Formats: sequence, C-alpha cells, structure tokens
Amino acid sequence: MAWNTNLRWRLPLICFLLEAAMVILFGVFVRYNPEADPHWEEEKRQHNISSDIENDFYYRYPTFGIQWALLMQGWFHSFEDGHILISVENLINADFCVGSVCVAFGAVLGKVSPIQLLIMTLIQVTLFSVNEYILLNLLHVKDAGGSMTIHTFGAYFGLMVTWILFRPNLEQSKERQSSVYHSDLFAMIGTLFLWMYWPSFNSAVSKHGDAQHRAAINTYCSLAACVLTTVALSSALQRKGKLDMVHIQNATLAGGVAVGTAAEMMLMPYGSLIVGFICGIVSTFGFVYLTPFLESRLRIQDTCGIHNLHGMPGIIGGIVGSVTAATANVGIYGKEGFIKAFDFEGPKSDWTSQIQAGYQAAGIFVSLTMAIVGGAIVGVILKFPLWGDPADENCFEDEVYWEVPKDEESHMYRPEEPALKPVAS
Amino acid sequence: MAWNTNLRWRLPLICFLLEAAMVILFGVFVRYNPEADPHWEEEKRQHNISSDIENDFYYRYPTFGIQWALLMQGWFHSFEDGHILISVENLINADFCVGSVCVAFGAVLGKVSPIQLLIMTLIQVTLFSVNEYILLNLLHVKDAGGSMTIHTFGAYFGLMVTWILFRPNLEQSKERQSSVYHSDLFAMIGTLFLWMYWPSFNSAVSKHGDAQHRAAINTYCSLAACVLTTVALSSALQRKGKLDMVHIQNATLAGGVAVGTAAEMMLMPYGSLIVGFICGIVSTFGFVYLTPFLESRLRIQDTCGIHNLHGMPGIIGGIVGSVTAATANVGIYGKEGFIKAFDFEGPKSDWTSQIQAGYQAAGIFVSLTMAIVGGAIVGVILKFPLWGDPADENCFEDEVYWEVPKDEESHMYRPEEPALKPVAS
Amino acid sequence: MAWNTNLRWRLPLICFLLEAAMVILFGVFVRYNPEADPHWEEEKRQHNISSDIENDFYYRYPTFGIQWALLMQGWFHSFEDGHILISVENLINADFCVGSVCVAFGAVLGKVSPIQLLIMTLIQVTLFSVNEYILLNLLHVKDAGGSMTIHTFGAYFGLMVTWILFRPNLEQSKERQSSVYHSDLFAMIGTLFLWMYWPSFNSAVSKHGDAQHRAAINTYCSLAACVLTTVALSSALQRKGKLDMVHIQNATLAGGVAVGTAAEMMLMPYGSLIVGFICGIVSTFGFVYLTPFLESRLRIQDTCGIHNLHGMPGIIGGIVGSVTAATANVGIYGKEGFIKAFDFEGPKSDWTSQIQAGYQAAGIFVSLTMAIVGGAIVGVILKFPLWGDPADENCFEDEVYWEVPKDEESHMYRPEEPALKPVAS
Repeated sequence: MAWNTNLRWRLPLICFLLEAAMVILFGVFVRYNPEADPHWEEEKRQHNISSDIENDFYYRYPTFGIQWALLMQGWFHSFEDGHILISVENLINADFCVGSVCVAFGAVLGKVSPIQLLIMTLIQVTLFSVNEYILLNLLHVKDAGGSMTIHTFGAYFGLMVTWILFRPNLEQSKERQSSVYHSDLFAMIGTLFLWMYWPSFNSAVSKHGDAQHRAAINTYCSLAACVLTTVALSSALQRKGKLDMVHIQNATLAGGVAVGTAAEMMLMPYGSLIVGFICGIVSTFGFVYLTPFLESRLRIQDTCGIHNLHGMPGIIGGIVGSVTAATANVGIYGKEGFIKAFDFEGPKSDWTSQIQAGYQAAGIFVSLTMAIVGGAIVGVILKFPLWGDPADENCFEDEVYWEVPKDEESHMYRPEEPALKPVAS
Repeated sequence: MAWNTNLRWRLPLICFLLEAAMVILFGVFVRYNPEADPHWEEEKRQHNISSDIENDFYYRYPTFGIQWALLMQGWFHSFEDGHILISVENLINADFCVGSVCVAFGAVLGKVSPIQLLIMTLIQVTLFSVNEYILLNLLHVKDAGGSMTIHTFGAYFGLMVTWILFRPNLEQSKERQSSVYHSDLFAMIGTLFLWMYWPSFNSAVSKHGDAQHRAAINTYCSLAACVLTTVALSSALQRKGKLDMVHIQNATLAGGVAVGTAAEMMLMPYGSLIVGFICGIVSTFGFVYLTPFLESRLRIQDTCGIHNLHGMPGIIGGIVGSVTAATANVGIYGKEGFIKAFDFEGPKSDWTSQIQAGYQAAGIFVSLTMAIVGGAIVGVILKFPLWGDPADENCFEDEVYWEVPKDEESHMYRPEEPALKPVAS
Repeated sequence: MAWNTNLRWRLPLICFLLEAAMVILFGVFVRYNPEADPHWEEEKRQHNISSDIENDFYYRYPTFGIQWALLMQGWFHSFEDGHILISVENLINADFCVGSVCVAFGAVLGKVSPIQLLIMTLIQVTLFSVNEYILLNLLHVKDAGGSMTIHTFGAYFGLMVTWILFRPNLEQSKERQSSVYHSDLFAMIGTLFLWMYWPSFNSAVSKHGDAQHRAAINTYCSLAACVLTTVALSSALQRKGKLDMVHIQNATLAGGVAVGTAAEMMLMPYGSLIVGFICGIVSTFGFVYLTPFLESRLRIQDTCGIHNLHGMPGIIGGIVGSVTAATANVGIYGKEGFIKAFDFEGPKSDWTSQIQAGYQAAGIFVSLTMAIVGGAIVGVILKFPLWGDPADENCFEDEVYWEVPKDEESHMYRPEEPALKPVAS
C-alpha cells in the first residue's frame, strides 16, 4: 500500500488544483511593471528617458515553481497598491528561486515521486522567499549570485529532507544509480552550458554598469581556476591518476557558486582565482571522502552530491562575501562607488563596511537555520505514505513514473493501446 | 524505379543550381540596411542619434531556406530603389519563415527524400512570404510571435502534404519510428532549449520597449502553466498514471505557440496562465486521441504530431490574439500606448479595437486557406516518382540517405574506399 | 616506461603549480578596467556619458588556458601603469585565444596525454599572443573573427605538432576512432550551437554599431550558403549519393571561419554567399581526399580533420579579407565610414586600401610562419618520454585517462574503493 506508485488521479488532481489556484492568484495580484506596460511612453516622458534601450529589459535577460515563486517573491518585493508589478527582473528572480529548489531535488532524486517533488516545491519556494526577504530587506545583505539565498539554503534544505527520508536498503537499487557512459556525456553538455552561463547568472540582477560588468569578470576567473584544481585533485585521488567524470561535471562549477555573493564587489581577479582554487579542492574532496561518509555514518543519502557543489561552496561564498565587504573602503571603490556598491545612504547612511560584513555573516546563519528547519518540516510531511514514492528495490528506476518504450513497440501511434479508452480501464 | 533512392547526381545538382541562383539574386538585389552600412555614422548625425547602442542590432539578436526567405520576405517588406536592404531583423524573420518550414517537415519526416524537402522549402517559403504580406501589410494584423503566420500556416501546410503522400503500408517500418531511450533524452535537450528561448522568439521582432518586455513576460507565464497541465493530463490519460516523454517533449511548448499573437498585447499574466493551461490540455489530448484518429480514419500520417504542438495551439493563438485585441481600450493601454500598440495612426487612424479584432480573425482564415491550397500543390508535385523517396519498408531508416558506420569500420580514414575514386565507381 | 600513463602525481603537480603561478601573476598585474571598476560613476561624469548602457559590457558578451591568455594578451594589449586592466572584451579575446588552442588539440586528440595538452596550451597561448600583437598592432591588420589569428594559426600549429608526433602503428586503435551512431548525434548538437553562435563570434569584438551589425549578417549568409554546397558535395562524392555525418558536422561551419576577417567589411551579402559556397566545397573535398592523403603520404594524422574546417578556410578567410580591403573606397563606405572601418587616422592617416590589403596579406604569412615554427617547438618538447602519453594500441581509449564505470559498478558511492585510502595505495 505504501508503495502504490500509480499516480493516475493523485498527480493530475494536484497539478490542476495548483494551476487553478495560480490563475486566480495571478488574476487578483499580478500586473505589469511600468517598464512592461503600455504607459511606458508616458513613463519615459515623465522621467526624461530619451531611449527605449533604458528599459530594464535590455539590461537583463533570461513552471509551477516559477509561478509560485513569482507570487511569493512578488508579495515580498514588488507589492504596490494591492498588486504585484512584474518585470523581467522578477522572472529572473523566480528562476533563481526555482534553481534553489532544483538544488534540493538533487539530494532526493530517485527515491521520491513527482507528487513529493511538487509538495517540496510549494513549501520550499515559500520559505525561500521569506529567507530572501529577511536577508535582502531586513539584514540589507548583498547576495547577487545567491551563494547564501540560493545555494546554501537549497543544499541544506535538500540534505535535511533526504536525511529524514533515509532508506536503509537503498543499495538494492545501487547499480541503477551508477553512471553510464552515454549519460555521462549528456551530463557534460549540461555542465558545459552551466559553466558558460554562470557569469550571466551571477551578474543578472546586479546593479547596472560597473557592478554587473565586474560580476561577470569575477565569476569567469573563479570558474577558470576551479577547473584546474578539480582536474589536479581528481587525478591525485585516484590510484592510477585517472580523471573522474563526476568530479569534472560538478566540481568545475563550484567556483561559480562560491563567488555568488562577492562577484559584484571588489574581490579582484586574483581574489576570484583564489576562491576558485579552494573550491575545486574542497568540492572534489567532498565527492571522494565526504559523500560516502555522510551516507554510511550520518545516513544522509545525497543522490547528486549537492553538498559538494552547492552546500560547501555556498557557505564559502557567504564567508568570502563577508570578508570582501569587511575590507571595502573609499580608497578602493571611490566615494560615489562605495556608497553605490553597498547602498550606504538613507537608512544605511551611517553604516561602515564592518557593519555590512557582520550582517553578511549573519545572513549565512539565517539561511542555514531556515534551510534546516524548513527541510525538517518538509521531510516529515513527505514521510506520510500517501505520495506514491517507490519501494526501495524500485528506486532510481525510470519505469516507475515514466512510460518507457519496449524494444519493438511503437511510441507515437498506438491505436490499440488501452490508454485510448481510459473509461474502460 | 520509383524507389531509386540514390541521390548522387540529383541532390548535388539541385543544391548547386539553387546556390548559384542565390548568389546571383543576392548580387542583384541585396544590400545592407543603413544600420549595418558604414554610412551609419552619417545616419546617426542626420537623425540626431547620440549612441551606437540605438543601432537596432542591440535590440534584437538570433539554410537554403534562409537565403530564399531573405529574398522573398525582402521583396515584400524591405524593397527600396530596386534593392532589398537587410538588417538583423530580416535575419530573424528569415529564421522564423524557415521555422515554419521545419514545422511542416515534422509531418512528413521519415517518408520523404532530401530532394523533396528542398522542393517543399522552395515553394513553402514563397507562399509563407505571400501570406505574411497579406496578413501584416494588407490586413494590418499583429502577429509578433507568429501563431498564425508561422505555426498555423506551417502545420496545416505540412498536414496537407502528408495527407497526399499517404502510405498505406507504413506500419511495415513502424518499429523504426518508435522512440528510443537515448533519442528521448536527446529530444529533451531540444525541448529544454526551445522552452528557454521561446520568450526570446515571441519578443524578437516586437516593438522596442514595453511591448518587447511584455511579450517575454507573457510567454514565460504561458509556458510555465502549460508544463503543469501537460504533466497532469499525461499522467491522467495513462492507465498506471505514468508520464509520457512524447507529451513532455511537445505539449510543454504549446503554451509558447498559443501566445504568439497576443504576447505583446495586454493579455495580462493571468491571461497567459489561462492560455497555457488550456494548451497543455488540448495538446496532450491531441497526442493521445487525435493523432491516432487522424492516421487511421483520415489517412493523415503526422510523424512528429505537429498538429498537437503547432496546428491547434496556432489556431488558439490566433483566436486569443483576436479576443485580446477586441478588449483593448485607452483605459488599459493609455492614450499613447493604445495608438502605438496597434499602429492606430495614418491609414489606421480611424480603426477601433473591434475592427482590429475582425482583421485578426480574418488572418486565421487566410493562413489556413493558404496553407491548405499550398500544401495540396506541393503534395501533388512530390507525388511524381522522380525525387528518390524511400520504399514503404525503408521509411524512417537512416541508412537510406546517410552513411551509417558499421560496427568495426573506421569512419575518418578510409583510403581504400571506392568513394575516393569516384571516376571509377 | 615510455608508456607509463599513470598521471597521479605528474598531472596534479603541474596543475597546482600553474594555478599558484596564475594567482601570483594576477595579484601583481591584473586590475579591473574603468568600465568594471566602481570609479565608473566618475568615469561617466568625466566623459559625459549619460547612461549605464554605454558600458561596454552591454555591447559585448560571453581555463588555465583562459587565465594564461588573459595575462599574455593583457601584457600586449591592455597594459597600463604596470597593470593589466581587464574588461569583458579581454574575456572574449581570451576565449578566442583558447579557441585557437582547441583547434590545434583537434589534430592530436587521442594520442596525447592531459599533461601534453597543458604544455601545448602554455606555449601556444604565448605564441598566439605574440602573433596577434604583430598582426593587430604592428601590421595594423583587421581580423575581428580571427580567420588568421585564430583558425590559420591554430590549425597549422596543431598539424605541425601531430606531424612530429606521428605514430606509424596508429591503425591498431583505428576502430576506436571510428564514429558511433550516438556520438554522431552528440557532435551534431555541438555543430548546431556553433552554427547558431558563429555570427556572435565573428561580431563579438567588432567596432560598435554598423560594423558589428554587418559582421553578424555576413557570417549568417556565408554559413547558409556553406550548408547547401556541403550537402551537395557530400552526396556527390559518395557512390550511392548518401550524406556523411562527418561532413555535415564540420564543413557546414567552414563558411563561418572563412568570413572571419572580412565579415565586418563591405563584403556584401552576395560576397558572403560566394565565400560560403566555395568553403563548403573545399572543406568537404578536404575530408574525402586530402585528409587520407595527408595521413598516408605526409604522415600527418589529423584526428578531427582540422585542416578542412580551420586550416584551408582560415587561409581563404585571410585572402578574402585582403581582397575585400583592396576594393574598399570612399564611394562604398562613405568618407567617415571608410576612415572608421580601417582606422585611417593618426599613424595610418596616409594609408590607402591597397596598403591595407598588402598588410592583410602579410598577416597570413606571419600567422603561418609562427604556427609552423611554434608547432615544431612544441612537437619536439612533447616527444620526450615524460608526459605519460599512451601506447599505440591504447590511443583513442577513454579508459587510459578517465575512470570509466564498469557495467554493474556504482559510481557515486564507493566506500570500499581504494581511492578512499590514498595513503595506503
């Protein structure tokens, strides 16, 4: 009974209800931001803007999770006169929020059902938005690339969930979890694109101009250094000096995660190299020693090794951000640049870089706490035997939730298949 | 004789002739638009433009089909003093035109030869340009994302062709058409990128500023909703509640198709969710019930199910566009915004949104008519037993037109192969 | 002994030393360019720039090789007051430099070790920067898309290295080099993205405005023509008229390489078609006849056929650039445009287009000479039996340098594997 993985009515019902709720909530709350509204012409005149290119759309540019994230983040950040005013920046932030959910998915993939993933999304997006609001609006933390809000939060949330969902007999399906030659090539395509786009991720919601430009440069440098130390360590830790695809697919990206907070600051190119250097090492070490240890001793089964790519590099990123903020001064940034970089005006006009650094550090702890508490709540909810999760011996099996074509069977046309007469089935 | 699939002289000859024709036509007709011409400096001064960033290149950005489309669309849309003046916008529009041809290809793939695809391209590009000219320039229809001009036209064109090319014994090669585990993963990569880029597609040729910004937002919302209802229905229509890769690969994109006309209008975010909601359902239903019905009863063999991803969503998109136009008014758009959104000035200065809506609706019927008539003509031409199409038992077989490496055979170096001495062969 | 491919200490040691050197060199030399520095605010005021969008970041956008390239190119091109000032343009140029190294890799892949690739990178990046400095700064050559600096230089460098590393018994591992169905599909994804992005490559570092716009148009046209003649010739050269995946994967891109120099000039759209037309033919011919000839007669083993995609098209590109420059005049470009296009001011104020053309031609020969001499040096260094290269019978074998999962073996968790206790091993 607990292993009834037939989702035929449960999954559709939940999806439709969620989507209907979204339509209603969007209808009530969501409107276009002035830059995406036809009143833009008047807006331009009023603010003395001479060109369409000043529309924020040209400075930036990038599912249920996304819709829910648009709403949750909208209520916290873009709520005005009873409406959420959305623009392309909201879309990017919603993508980032869902990115954090996907990070957490990485810890539990293979042993949960699509319904469990939906529930997890619903709660995690909510808590992500609360955490983000605390960090960015209450603690006035800088975190453009999301080392804390996206990666640290997402990773420890997922690890907490998987700890509660521990399955002692998972080794029964171990061989299905092993990497396969062709799947490894597929994963490398993913790595390649993530690597290429990471400078865009970290700079996407930075302040226009120099900060955005700098965020791309720092991320690029950190990624480059990270690849080299990942290759070094992957080879050094294997008896015959061979490279391991899993390390190359993952640890090469850790440098991007770890400059997520400081990328828009004056981290300096060599500073970025140092961060990447360290993260290539930490992340690869994690795959080789820590992941097996977490599983065998702490009963934390981390399917994709998110602790190595997002957890530890995320915390490192938070620390690097705090240290970089602490060392900021007018000499390095220039007077105007210093104020602009940390918003030291209005309520923050009497802040020093040391105060900023303290709040940055606080942000790490808040994110960790929110992640662990939130992950525990979700874990307990997902424990109920209602959500159609697979038996231990069926974990990591595509066939449980996907129709997998048999050898000789046609996939497109199946006029004789029972699915065509669902009433009779 | 009808099944002589050796294209050795037919294919090269046609390709070379076409390419030679292109060179001549381009030489006679095609020049750079002022924004891509070195006279841009003078152009800037003359129009009082202060920055290079106002060059249209920075607002937009993206094969024989492409060349022929550049010419055909150029003659209709960018013809001045005997020359076609091309810019990046023409390149994007040519890509869209070829996109429409690729949609039509989806209906006939596997049972036609490369030569037949070339002929189809030649004629379809021509008719696409005529149809586009009628819609955009004569009927003054708005269709930035091409629900009507690209998807409706392309889909019904292809379906007409495949209807005429009906093969009663196609089930002989049925097992080769079935989906395969690895090919399904490949297709998912395609889906992922199409999904990511669809907001760019729908906004690429929109008016600068708010319209372009809004087009991206609406497309993004529609796609998000569409995924959720596709998952719901895919699971609900399978006996054991499993998901089907073909649905996820296709129907998740239908929401993007269906806001192709209205994306730049004030469809509102919740309106986009509703459109996506509906299209996920319609498209998945299509795959499960309509495609087998079309094949068994109407003798329409639709290889990739284009009717579900482009046909029905395209028509829905046209209707949504017409309805959204009908409800437009000065209250929603602002006075200036209303005029700008629908070009209600000059010859259209006395138009109302109801008139616009009427013409939008007319655009759907014109596109359908052109597609069906054009597809019939092409179908009849492709029936001639001259074009090297495969026998029924060889359909969906890569080996017919591609050199497929045998197990132990080297591919790069084959100094002993006859291909190296073509004179002797 | 010569075939000791265990890199366990050699590879990590070299990687760590290189990365440490990078950190030190970056610390001493590299700073942000004013557009990526917080003094940007003052910069804007000083230069009377009214908008952040004028930051060069918005006009452009995109490993050890990259780091070393940033330094080498930085010393030559962006060195000021003892510091290299980097911006996004430097990142792009570093990518291009590493692209040239990757071209050269294509000639030797499968018969060299990762250490050899690192050494090759170190030296080739250095010489690339010298060559680039000679061409762009001393000869005042135009080469925005790098037909000469990237492709010609990279290709002949790699061919020289592989000539020296000739292995007479390579046919022992021949069957592993042959193309495989799924790998061919993977490669097609690569081709598709390269094809799509090539207009961006060739225009990335062009002058703002019309030149950049034109570079994208010309590249697009050349690529389109190239596909058609590649298909034609691939079919014509096969006995049964079938298409060859290797040709389609490679020769379809040759048109992009061959407009690398002239793309930003007034090559005209039909001129681009002609260049693409020729390159599709030359490149496909190369794969069918020249590559086997080079291997059997000249002992040049060109693993990926880089001579066909980069070597010959690169030289053609250099020639096309020279001819296009020679025909430039005030009538075509306008007075201001002519000066801007070729920098005919300051030290070049008395230059004619014929002088420019002469220097362009000289650039081809300089690039070839540097490539051949540099490749010879690297080839000799790589001959030393120290670098862990594979035995002839192990060439093209992934298992030599990569940990390849065995059938039933789990990849992620291996608490019992010796790699976990490296001290004991």
